[in-house]
Amino acid sequence: MSDTPKFAVFGGGSWATAIVKMLCENLAEVGWYMRSVYALEHIKKEQHNPNYLSSIEFNTDQLRLSNDINEMVTYADYLIFVIPSAFVENELKKLKVSLEGKIIFSAIKGIVPESSLIVGDHFFTHYNIPFKDIGVITGPCHAEEVAMERLSYLTIACADEEKAELVASKLRCEYIKTTTSDDIIGTEYAAMLKNIYALAAGIAHGLGYGDNFQSVLMSNAIREMKRYVKKVHKMKRDINGSAYLGDLLVTGYSIFSRNRMFGNMIGKGYTVKSAMMEMSMVAEGYYATKSAYLLNQKKGKKKAKTPIIDAVYEILYEAKNPKKVFKKLTEKLN
Amino acid sequence: MSDTPKFAVFGGGSWATAIVKMLCENLAEVGWYMRSVYALEHIKKEQHNPNYLSSIEFNTDQLRLSNDINEMVTYADYLIFVIPSAFVENELKKLKVSLEGKIIFSAIKGIVPESSLIVGDHFFTHYNIPFKDIGVITGPCHAEEVAMERLSYLTIACADEEKAELVASKLRCEYIKTTTSDDIIGTEYAAMLKNIYALAAGIAHGLGYGDNFQSVLMSNAIREMKRYVKKVHKMKRDINGSAYLGDLLVTGYSIFSRNRMFGNMIGKGYTVKSAMMEMSMVAEGYYATKSAYLLNQKKGKKKAKTPIIDAVYEILYEAKNPKKVFKKLTEKLN
Repeated sequence: MSDTPKFAVFGGGSWATAIVKMLCENLAEVGWYMRSVYALEHIKKEQHNPNYLSSIEFNTDQLRLSNDINEMVTYADYLIFVIPSAFVENELKKLKVSLEGKIIFSAIKGIVPESSLIVGDHFFTHYNIPFKDIGVITGPCHAEEVAMERLSYLTIACADEEKAELVASKLRCEYIKTTTSDDIIGTEYAAMLKNIYALAAGIAHGLGYGDNFQSVLMSNAIREMKRYVKKVHKMKRDINGSAYLGDLLVTGYSIFSRNRMFGNMIGKGYTVKSAMMEMSMVAEGYYATKSAYLLNQKKGKKKAKTPIIDAVYEILYEAKNPKKVFKKLTEKLN
Repeated sequence: MSDTPKFAVFGGGSWATAIVKMLCENLAEVGWYMRSVYALEHIKKEQHNPNYLSSIEFNTDQLRLSNDINEMVTYADYLIFVIPSAFVENELKKLKVSLEGKIIFSAIKGIVPESSLIVGDHFFTHYNIPFKDIGVITGPCHAEEVAMERLSYLTIACADEEKAELVASKLRCEYIKTTTSDDIIGTEYAAMLKNIYALAAGIAHGLGYGDNFQSVLMSNAIREMKRYVKKVHKMKRDINGSAYLGDLLVTGYSIFSRNRMFGNMIGKGYTVKSAMMEMSMVAEGYYATKSAYLLNQKKGKKKAKTPIIDAVYEILYEAKNPKKVFKKLTEKLN
């Protein structure tokens, strides 16, 4: 790796676009891979992403744009993946060049459906990337607010704290503050679990529960998250840190969250299938619920107590009546 | 005290009205004291409080109404005070009968200005009520949602757990779930501190900070609350319980919170005086900020680290520039 490592972002969505913006604050050149040739051509001509965060104007001299994933992997030392977890494996299948020696940071929230693994684990297990070369970029952060340059805090996690610090230094700027962490597993699970809790908040809202209940639900959710993450990877962590509680809150209280919207429709009586069709996309929390539930069940007697995840699972995957399931759930909260 | 202890609620506001409603679900008779003769007469004639939560219809046969505080104190065994902390001492001054042997529960959030004490401490210090006879009723609970019978969770705290359980049993019903606790000091401080954090959230919003920052602020607030409460009364408590984190969230995320509204005006550039005049009332968090700050300062080197409280204090009581103070504050959060 050269003295000034090269960075590339993989993905064309809003979070990818926001991360490219941050990197452009600090780097002379940023690689940016996305599938869509149309979007790439538009960026070159109009200096903004036509599909997401169009208000961000890029200096295209800083961008190294490509829709060839192999070219981009070859170019960069630090690869930041921001492709929805449901599609990441599809993209990785196109790889002909090796990932050996590359540093992989994931800004993806969720589980890779093909492997039922969080993204870090997926790269470790299926691409032989050592854990010291895997990192996570996590919020609490709505990409839309990065576009508006509203102050946001990111947590950059990597077992190798030097790499975490290097990535942090390339992201922070006037409107971005960064914290580093060595809890790559905990932050990644937290980022995934929070989508389930946002979905639960949506179901509750759809069923007619109010703000009092929402606060009790979030208070129980963070305790459940703590128990869950502790079972997955026991270490000293403050679950009330921004990367855990902050991330839960920014999603659980956002009325724009797709997970919350999806849950809201379920609570209002839509079937899972019709809610999916209506939204013409799948909320990350839908997959996360199944993975998180099954992973926990596998632990048998050692599983964490997860009444909220269990309730959402029963509703989404066992077609149980949301009203009845939540009535039972309310008895378990405090 | 008789086998079936008598309950009376002192106060005529929305939270008092909501508590009377809950008690009426369980008791044949509920005492209800308020100053306003007009409101009392209205309740007798129209079965609802003219000023607050007017949608609640009472069965007036259940209500023992009075605007004579001495009569009501004589009548009841359990006295539930729900008078804003700024006015409670004014009411207590009217007492000619003794409070000896009475069980006092406070549903007041804040500091008694005359003594700079939380309400429990005030009754202990100035009225010689032993701590085993003092309790706290706390949320997370917007009174408005009780009126709508939306599911809410209350925490009832008393050093004497039997008394906590007795009060809990008179409040819980189809739409109210209760938890008991022996952390009377912690829950009461939490209920007070959350108003400061809601005020801080309002200032941030007024200054143009967004949802990403709000979640970081709340994540830092709960950690600050934990440190603060630990210094005041060290015991084993889970700060993520509903009475602490839940209460913080229901207030900090409520756009109807008076504290948040007040803070918002300060953030938008109103002076403290003009914001107060505009709101024609004083937000509890205004007094709480001074008391919490000074109480902490008194501890000298043993004080808790409270960057958020300190920042709000500087803005409200030292007339410092909100924008500059918050800019400095953002450096201390993570």
